[in-house]
Amino acid sequence: MANADCVSVRVFSLNCWGIHYLSKHCSQRYQMIGEMLCKEQHDIVLLQEVWSEKDFLYLKVKLASTHPHSHYFKSGVIGSGLAIFAKHRIHDTFLYRYSLNGYPYMAHHGDWFGGKAVGMAILNIAGLTANVYVTHLHAEYSREKDSYLSHRVVQAWELQQFIRHTSTGADVVIVGGDLNMHPQDLGCRLLMSYTGLKDSYIETAKFDGCENGMTLIADNLFISKNELIPFEKGIRIDYILFKGSSTAKIYCDFMSTTKGSVPGHPLPYSDHEALTAELRLESHIPAQAGSGKTHDTPAEKLAELVDTLTEARTEVKVGLHCAERMRYTAARTGVMGLALLVLELAIAAVPCFALGAEQPFPRISFYLLAALCFAILLTTFLLYIFYTMELKSLQGAEDQMRLAVGSLQEKLRGFPVAQPNDAPQRSPEGQQPSALDPEE
Amino acid sequence: MANADCVSVRVFSLNCWGIHYLSKHCSQRYQMIGEMLCKEQHDIVLLQEVWSEKDFLYLKVKLASTHPHSHYFKSGVIGSGLAIFAKHRIHDTFLYRYSLNGYPYMAHHGDWFGGKAVGMAILNIAGLTANVYVTHLHAEYSREKDSYLSHRVVQAWELQQFIRHTSTGADVVIVGGDLNMHPQDLGCRLLMSYTGLKDSYIETAKFDGCENGMTLIADNLFISKNELIPFEKGIRIDYILFKGSSTAKIYCDFMSTTKGSVPGHPLPYSDHEALTAELRLESHIPAQAGSGKTHDTPAEKLAELVDTLTEARTEVKVGLHCAERMRYTAARTGVMGLALLVLELAIAAVPCFALGAEQPFPRISFYLLAALCFAILLTTFLLYIFYTMELKSLQGAEDQMRLAVGSLQEKLRGFPVAQPNDAPQRSPEGQQPSALDPEE
Repeated sequence: MANADCVSVRVFSLNCWGIHYLSKHCSQRYQMIGEMLCKEQHDIVLLQEVWSEKDFLYLKVKLASTHPHSHYFKSGVIGSGLAIFAKHRIHDTFLYRYSLNGYPYMAHHGDWFGGKAVGMAILNIAGLTANVYVTHLHAEYSREKDSYLSHRVVQAWELQQFIRHTSTGADVVIVGGDLNMHPQDLGCRLLMSYTGLKDSYIETAKFDGCENGMTLIADNLFISKNELIPFEKGIRIDYILFKGSSTAKIYCDFMSTTKGSVPGHPLPYSDHEALTAELRLESHIPAQAGSGKTHDTPAEKLAELVDTLTEARTEVKVGLHCAERMRYTAARTGVMGLALLVLELAIAAVPCFALGAEQPFPRISFYLLAALCFAILLTTFLLYIFYTMELKSLQGAEDQMRLAVGSLQEKLRGFPVAQPNDAPQRSPEGQQPSALDPEE
Repeated sequence: MANADCVSVRVFSLNCWGIHYLSKHCSQRYQMIGEMLCKEQHDIVLLQEVWSEKDFLYLKVKLASTHPHSHYFKSGVIGSGLAIFAKHRIHDTFLYRYSLNGYPYMAHHGDWFGGKAVGMAILNIAGLTANVYVTHLHAEYSREKDSYLSHRVVQAWELQQFIRHTSTGADVVIVGGDLNMHPQDLGCRLLMSYTGLKDSYIETAKFDGCENGMTLIADNLFISKNELIPFEKGIRIDYILFKGSSTAKIYCDFMSTTKGSVPGHPLPYSDHEALTAELRLESHIPAQAGSGKTHDTPAEKLAELVDTLTEARTEVKVGLHCAERMRYTAARTGVMGLALLVLELAIAAVPCFALGAEQPFPRISFYLLAALCFAILLTTFLLYIFYTMELKSLQGAEDQMRLAVGSLQEKLRGFPVAQPNDAPQRSPEGQQPSALDPEE
């Protein structure tokens, strides 16, 4: 395994504010983000609030040559909104969905539907195993009367648990995301002190960006000043965190944030500022292959594992089709319930068809029918939501499996998977499922 | 850190079938299980389907002297049903809830309400870091037409992901539970081949138990023969799995299962058979402190972490009280809705109060009121379920935090936390929250 003494890794993190029809200039901003990422060529790009998979796919196509490796983390009703793009091959991914995430009936806050989570990707950078995490915690809608505080504290707790327990074998740990917490907030302290993660804004040798490293600023076009009260100038709630290990040290040489507007563009990238950290990795001891004991697996075992995984993918796909059919049935039944209700109301609205007060039976029927329609609508709505969540989970598992099969097949073919510097040079097809698995 | 050459670890696993009012002789069987565990003094006891926390607490009291360390994993509406009892101190716990777990409307199957999960506990056994996992996968209700197959495959996938990613730092890995899969089933193969876990039934040097290691047998009093068709004698779906690492080897010297009836008792312990595996741990290289980099943390940092954790616990407790109040309000509103409905039906049932056909307004009111009552009942029912899940998640986090504070405080006091053999001899109070945290 290669042992580089010193490698530079540029990490980018941005909350993309990608709510179509609600976020302003969404498509235009994605275009700007795509162009900037193409140009800047960061090693690791961590995005949050990429709520629409279409936007992820748009970026995936746009970044195919600069960032051939990517993963979109699916969860909840809408999705986790988390995405990662990397120059280096992603060997493995895993998602942990927070057990608490707001309330479904607080639909205007929307957090519950997003299925907030922390996504992990294992990368090999210059012979070092890097565990990269991207996350987005529950928003703070009111600092004075924060009804989600306990949820966010539990999320911070689960985040540190997940990072701590999954990163034991890693040489370096990199975490990026929108924590929705100020640096001195309880959850932040919990996360930092328990994991030993360091804040790149605090640790950086040089900084260029907003005052106090703020990432939600009053100078941003999309920010209403009222939101920020009592923090007039802004707040810092987005972070890039890192830590090394006994095998590798990690430093932050330079950090920057955008400052609201983007030079040469009429719009900012998002309502949040983008963060870039230039990290320097120094490997101390010849790096151990910490990421997987399967590295030593003989070829026939690997082939067997690929077969098993392929079988599992097929089974998950069967489940996917089944869930899709169920969701379709729920939607169709819902539409029929709605049609029935409309028809009934139309009949009632037309006076000549109106039910006479002398006919007790039709009147009862009318109300019973209306009640039935509402019951159908409610039930099918709940079922639709549920099947959407099921679909997301199945798709998420299938994505993880596809990535794993790709990694294993590459190993089987004798590709130098553990050799890191080749990865970025390889064509993006290596990441495309079609090239990895003919049954796709 | 102590470096033992050879340690014997006895592991026990049982699906307790603890559904009060539905499972037969539930309390009597828990009494039998408690007595047997007291007598047998296994090092690690992994239980599934301990659906009621009361039963866990009953066992906790019963096993206070033999198994001073325990953890109950909370999740979902009812709970995960998972519990661990150990002679050795539990340093850390973590729970991963499967993203898929059946359907809420399949209430008669009940799996969705259980919130199936995999629980992890980190133990220190003779200087070796042991990651112990207990899990219970979705049941297979029909082998021919298994509508949950994709869910179970995804669960097996997530289980292997969780084990693989969280056990990198472990010297030995022990997994016990009811996988609800036959040895050659897809999910089993996926789990075993990806993680490299070994099946103690296959690996054991000596075996005493049911034919083919079966754990759901026709000879069990509680099993109806029809359930097992086409497997007349029974099936093997419960497992104890293990694997070593570069620092420690692990072997299975002896394995046994119960055989339906229990000598000297009129009843079996459960509808599943209990498994016992005698594992032998051989440490090769002086064990590294793999489980936590916080071991090197200086005292003031530890104290700060304890303070932060205590603050987090307080915040979670505030959330707990709030969720309890909300659930109470939902329940009270539901009861009021029900009372209103009963009152309305009573009025309608008494002829002298019956609404005349000539009064169109009261008749409309009658149906509208009934619809309102049903809407209240449904909404409050859903809210009650939701708040129960929220409560379980908050309680789960609080439990994990309490355990962590205990472990940290012990370290702070200069107790020999890393010295394993002292742990079992310590009084059970070490595990009691009251002794660890005065604010409990």
